[in-house]
Amino acid sequence: MKRIGVLTSGGDAPGMNAAIRAVVRKGIFEGLEVVGIKRGYAGLINGEFVDMNLGSVADIIQRGGTILRTARSEEFRTVEGRRRAYANMQEQGIEGLIVIGGDGSFRGAQIFSQEHGVKVIGIPGTIDNDIPCSDYSIGFDTSVNTVVDAINKIRDTATSHERTYVIEVMGRHAGYIALEAGLAGGAESILIPEIPFSIDEIIEKLHRGQKRGKLHSIIVVAEGAASGIEIGKQIKEKTGFDTKVTILGHLQRGGTPTAFDRVLASRMGALAVDLIKAGESGKMIARQHNDLVAVDFDCALSEKRTIDHSVYELAGILAI
Amino acid sequence: MKRIGVLTSGGDAPGMNAAIRAVVRKGIFEGLEVVGIKRGYAGLINGEFVDMNLGSVADIIQRGGTILRTARSEEFRTVEGRRRAYANMQEQGIEGLIVIGGDGSFRGAQIFSQEHGVKVIGIPGTIDNDIPCSDYSIGFDTSVNTVVDAINKIRDTATSHERTYVIEVMGRHAGYIALEAGLAGGAESILIPEIPFSIDEIIEKLHRGQKRGKLHSIIVVAEGAASGIEIGKQIKEKTGFDTKVTILGHLQRGGTPTAFDRVLASRMGALAVDLIKAGESGKMIARQHNDLVAVDFDCALSEKRTIDHSVYELAGILAI
Amino acid sequence: MKRIGVLTSGGDAPGMNAAIRAVVRKGIFEGLEVVGIKRGYAGLINGEFVDMNLGSVADIIQRGGTILRTARSEEFRTVEGRRRAYANMQEQGIEGLIVIGGDGSFRGAQIFSQEHGVKVIGIPGTIDNDIPCSDYSIGFDTSVNTVVDAINKIRDTATSHERTYVIEVMGRHAGYIALEAGLAGGAESILIPEIPFSIDEIIEKLHRGQKRGKLHSIIVVAEGAASGIEIGKQIKEKTGFDTKVTILGHLQRGGTPTAFDRVLASRMGALAVDLIKAGESGKMIARQHNDLVAVDFDCALSEKRTIDHSVYELAGILAI
Amino acid sequence: MKRIGVLTSGGDAPGMNAAIRAVVRKGIFEGLEVVGIKRGYAGLINGEFVDMNLGSVADIIQRGGTILRTARSEEFRTVEGRRRAYANMQEQGIEGLIVIGGDGSFRGAQIFSQEHGVKVIGIPGTIDNDIPCSDYSIGFDTSVNTVVDAINKIRDTATSHERTYVIEVMGRHAGYIALEAGLAGGAESILIPEIPFSIDEIIEKLHRGQKRGKLHSIIVVAEGAASGIEIGKQIKEKTGFDTKVTILGHLQRGGTPTAFDRVLASRMGALAVDLIKAGESGKMIARQHNDLVAVDFDCALSEKRTIDHSVYELAGILAI
Repeated sequence: MKRIGVLTSGGDAPGMNAAIRAVVRKGIFEGLEVVGIKRGYAGLINGEFVDMNLGSVADIIQRGGTILRTARSEEFRTVEGRRRAYANMQEQGIEGLIVIGGDGSFRGAQIFSQEHGVKVIGIPGTIDNDIPCSDYSIGFDTSVNTVVDAINKIRDTATSHERTYVIEVMGRHAGYIALEAGLAGGAESILIPEIPFSIDEIIEKLHRGQKRGKLHSIIVVAEGAASGIEIGKQIKEKTGFDTKVTILGHLQRGGTPTAFDRVLASRMGALAVDLIKAGESGKMIARQHNDLVAVDFDCALSEKRTIDHSVYELAGILAI
Repeated sequence: MKRIGVLTSGGDAPGMNAAIRAVVRKGIFEGLEVVGIKRGYAGLINGEFVDMNLGSVADIIQRGGTILRTARSEEFRTVEGRRRAYANMQEQGIEGLIVIGGDGSFRGAQIFSQEHGVKVIGIPGTIDNDIPCSDYSIGFDTSVNTVVDAINKIRDTATSHERTYVIEVMGRHAGYIALEAGLAGGAESILIPEIPFSIDEIIEKLHRGQKRGKLHSIIVVAEGAASGIEIGKQIKEKTGFDTKVTILGHLQRGGTPTAFDRVLASRMGALAVDLIKAGESGKMIARQHNDLVAVDFDCALSEKRTIDHSVYELAGILAI
Repeated sequence: MKRIGVLTSGGDAPGMNAAIRAVVRKGIFEGLEVVGIKRGYAGLINGEFVDMNLGSVADIIQRGGTILRTARSEEFRTVEGRRRAYANMQEQGIEGLIVIGGDGSFRGAQIFSQEHGVKVIGIPGTIDNDIPCSDYSIGFDTSVNTVVDAINKIRDTATSHERTYVIEVMGRHAGYIALEAGLAGGAESILIPEIPFSIDEIIEKLHRGQKRGKLHSIIVVAEGAASGIEIGKQIKEKTGFDTKVTILGHLQRGGTPTAFDRVLASRMGALAVDLIKAGESGKMIARQHNDLVAVDFDCALSEKRTIDHSVYELAGILAI
Repeated sequence: MKRIGVLTSGGDAPGMNAAIRAVVRKGIFEGLEVVGIKRGYAGLINGEFVDMNLGSVADIIQRGGTILRTARSEEFRTVEGRRRAYANMQEQGIEGLIVIGGDGSFRGAQIFSQEHGVKVIGIPGTIDNDIPCSDYSIGFDTSVNTVVDAINKIRDTATSHERTYVIEVMGRHAGYIALEAGLAGGAESILIPEIPFSIDEIIEKLHRGQKRGKLHSIIVVAEGAASGIEIGKQIKEKTGFDTKVTILGHLQRGGTPTAFDRVLASRMGALAVDLIKAGESGKMIARQHNDLVAVDFDCALSEKRTIDHSVYELAGILAI
């Protein structure tokens, strides 16, 4: 192995730049040449290659987003698209590929690897934290802190005003951000896709809180569980409480990465280089307990991670 | 003048606590007794009084919201409500009142003062910054920085992804937050209530930007100009561009106040005490140029402040 | 078990309030009465007790510091001091004690428990993260992020100016903060008490970096390894490089806790209540891998945690 | 005027990038070519020129530091150095120069302009805010907020611990940062070069505070008034109070600029282009009251700005 490529794919996540930096510098330290591929698999197909050196990744560890950009590629889902990608890799002399992204990206990587014998190692990067077999994905911790910061700010005004606040956060299929941020932010109710909810129970809780003299209520809603605007409308209609809605949207993807995400990304990037240099392939770096290990893509693609119900219950107990 | 009251009224704004602290400590320094009135005019009517001492306002300068809380009072709009408020003040021996709030609060203060001869001084506190005769209101600077922080975060992911982002910010009747934050955040388009806009022009601008290789577009929308969700929908329909919407909502009212707002609030609170001690009434503290002055309530209630069109144009020029 | 006490002891750490909140609310949820003890063991001796209810811990989850305050108590090191503490507990009807603090606090707790048969459960709270048997202590993640934020800011000006910067951080006996923040911040050199360093090697590295065109160098120094001012002076003398020193000091103890610390504190507080209710004693809650477990005080007091040398080496490789 | 140059000089300040962006984009909008000069006057002498286009300044408005870098140039203080600088400008066809920096930079600009007839416009950029004739310089607001954030964090731990904290901030000749941040942060004592202080008075104040039950004391020291470490040592010796020292150092120069600094920089940059295009020279943009005006370099170089003593006294009154 002399020359490897690195790309970011799918939704971007804070900390991806720290992972790119680690791949490049650890790669060079290990005597490899490292090529950056722009715009994910689309760039692999269209030949958007850029040689990376130590300076290419200077002063990026603190930046949100990804300097390599990312895109979703329909073409890479086709045999022909992957064929072109492989041809480009051969032309460039790229022998191994490190893919930073989510499960969709790894599914593509797996097929690509099986079809063309390309060596591929995956690094889990997604704010949703929904990749099985890894306790943490790059970007999750930053994203949760962004939501908690928003809850903090709303809490300031909430205490002054005695109102109900609904905050819609990301998570189409997974409620990790909502659950972690809701617990950390002290939210009264947390709605996530994994656990059915009843609007009547939420309202019952609001009434109980009001009777006990609670000054305000904060409800965190994962977009996959319900629409924040819809929940706000229903609460207002059924209780008459002044209810305000915030939709955080894509700002949850941005921001300078937290120390946790930078360290995770740095260590994952370095381990990915070790693995690919050792000739490994078809594996994803995972954080299991406090250690980094390599798991088969099959594990990462098997099923969704499941929510820890005890954490959900704890959030309810602590917000009484 | 021996005993004065202080209350916060209308929407809360970051820095109100710094103003309360200044009123209390400067008041005590000047030999006055200071009474805190909870929940604005509602508390004045319901008799929610609390004696303030130096320690009452310790460690609040950095807190968002208002420790005295705030509420809107329908009853204070009635002759009977104001009569009860006056009776309470007499019973408490409160001779002067310092009101921290927006124009609605000052309108109430003016009538109250005219009916009962109560001495009242106003301090402008509203994130909207729409109070005439004062260049700045307490809370505006903090709120603008909150919006700019959100734009920063979106910018990170925007650069990675090449999309259009719509951010709805506060401002039902005034576009100050949108304009200032849009200029500071480098937004491509800024929609405010004061200036008519055409969706076709915005779309034309998006197309022009795209042709020039612009990676992303950020559109800041004041809630009084349009609905962020509606604008997002229209752009998506008419251009096919992937368009994401953020609605910041009430988090714009929270957060620890900026240095600017704390200094403004501290100085305004101290000057209000000087004025009320000197027997002044019916006046609002205003920042004009860099000085603090006292203006008649009439000035503050006359009309709305007007947007500086040259700033609006500059924002357009710099975001080309 | 009907009535328990909770106190914070030793140096304060961000997230201690979240732990207090969890102990109080989980305690009440489990049918216990919870008493707050002010100023650590000193308050236990002096009888500074305050009954806690659901509202006592409202809106504290986001606050740095500890609402119960903390102090070091010489008197609690004496048999007589602990006798008085025990007498107070009996008078108050407090049957179990939850101690949030560091190893010094647990040593006291252990003796106290052995002498008087008091049930005690410990929760590790210290920014230094140096408590054996637990991967994380409350406050560490926040503190590391504070240091990383400082490095970010210095990096901005460093890039403009081409200088050498020295940042002294906390850690008298342990280099965890320096190591984690140095890796996350991309520091060129990291000096920690656990690993001997040579000023000549650091200078050699500076010269090598300069030759390679590196614009700036950031050196993170744990206070236990060397004095930041001294290191700065030596570099300046031996290289002539313009060298600037920052000493972060106690600001590393403050700030609103990160999501990670709040979740850790909430879960540890709740588990401590479960344990004490179940009649357990002499144990500390520990995070091992991703789980919370109970370990004997002996484990927590046995020896110091050891630095992961591979992380130290990685930091060096990535900052080349 | 067809082609202008822009450079940053002296100490860097957050917001300089926003000013560069405004000069470049407004310049291009006005039909001018804009050349960036690297490393201040040193780059002018050494011929470090880079043509700027709309994209050169994309996504820099939020960045601290200066993309053009800055340096101090001994050579530009010589007739020969300035002769070479002028020759380079002629060769490049640069007819006018916009200099972003402090008073030292403007002194150089003035001599350069007088010797060679070069058109020069200055923009005040320095965190110290010590440039006469302008109420604000770019970077000051950001820097003050950085210090206030540090005070906030120290306040958290201070309240828990009952100690005395000394924070040394920038300001060799001017106490603006210390004064503004001290007032905004609620510091008990503020030491600045402009006002003599007595260590005995400070200690007397600490004793008075302690008697009144004050939990902590925060003392902000401008580096030009005293050494933070020295003040800390003296307090400890004379009172026995546990006293902790923080030296913020160069992190005060970094960080993403505040909205205030970005708007100020954007407007100043645009106005500088208007002036130079109109053939003006030898002038600095100044903020006077809320307006931007052009003043002669003589005004900016005449003498130092003076501290507002009433603000200093107010800080003392509010921190009692």
